[in-house]
Amino acid sequence: MIADRIRKQLEFVYEIDKVKSIFRKTKLFDSSRYENDAEHSWTICIMAVLFREYANFDINLEKVIKMLLIHDIVEIYAGDTFLYSSERESAYQKEELSAKKIFGMLDNDQADEYYNLWVEFEERKTNEAKYAAVFDRIEPVLQNYKTKGITWAENEITKEMVYQKNKHIEEGSKELWEVFNEVLQECIREGYIK
Amino acid sequence: MIADRIRKQLEFVYEIDKVKSIFRKTKLFDSSRYENDAEHSWTICIMAVLFREYANFDINLEKVIKMLLIHDIVEIYAGDTFLYSSERESAYQKEELSAKKIFGMLDNDQADEYYNLWVEFEERKTNEAKYAAVFDRIEPVLQNYKTKGITWAENEITKEMVYQKNKHIEEGSKELWEVFNEVLQECIREGYIK
Repeated sequence: MIADRIRKQLEFVYEIDKVKSIFRKTKLFDSSRYENDAEHSWTICIMAVLFREYANFDINLEKVIKMLLIHDIVEIYAGDTFLYSSERESAYQKEELSAKKIFGMLDNDQADEYYNLWVEFEERKTNEAKYAAVFDRIEPVLQNYKTKGITWAENEITKEMVYQKNKHIEEGSKELWEVFNEVLQECIREGYIK
Repeated sequence: MIADRIRKQLEFVYEIDKVKSIFRKTKLFDSSRYENDAEHSWTICIMAVLFREYANFDINLEKVIKMLLIHDIVEIYAGDTFLYSSERESAYQKEELSAKKIFGMLDNDQADEYYNLWVEFEERKTNEAKYAAVFDRIEPVLQNYKTKGITWAENEITKEMVYQKNKHIEEGSKELWEVFNEVLQECIREGYIK
């Protein structure tokens, strides 16, 4: 007999698989198709490992990766809300309900742990959350750089909007904030963004 | 000016994106399509976090996750070799060359770190590698359980083959080895596998 606790954990694994069918507003680096939430999470986890030396402070990398692994699971019930859309501000409440529902599939200790990690990521107050947010934000900018601004054009995104929504990258990593600026400047020079 | 080191790291991130176009021989839990390597890696990272309490020994979870994040990157040049195929035994050499090439895009310190992590995962001698291997092997079994053995049938896989190739799960986690056995027994009872 599989214990009740493990059975819940397995059901959770099956349920979160649905993020593989939630597509983002950005494309893969080769521009062949839109990226889904699971792929996005994998990429930014690798980035957080690879770029660790550029964190503004000591971080608990295990915690950062946990946050990044689970941060988009809430979209299974709440949907993907585009960073630049007008619904972004009101999305939090919907996502919070979704977080309670999905993490609530687990026993209380794990439900609480993952819910709290999700809230910590969203609040962006701790060092780990500030560092994790760098990658959630810089990946789409790099994707637009490599795909010549294809999804910026599709969604009428301007350089002012990109600066405004991503400037907190600097709170997590000064070096990667410089990279962000260099890349955005090149995008402007090349005409990938208005 | 973006420093040479960061430029290499960015090129690496762009290059490894190709795993999102490498499809496995197993399907998503909802059986809608085959799973790609990035999605697989994300799922087994989450599983390694979620099931940590069942590891046979103390593990460095950060190291486990790093291994799982990068373990399939070698398939970009070596291709996905099906666990049950006759080419599996000879795949290692091709994958080793691939590992040297892809991790060699980075400066030596990081190239060595990731190459060594990949070798450690493949050799399955350390506690971290044994625990990481549990998830690489149990995910496809769970996927076949949820999809009624669809890709086992496609590839003429028998229960003896599944036992033979996955029995080392027990070295990483006795509890998950029991889960594996319960699930496989149910698959046999339901006729999902011969």
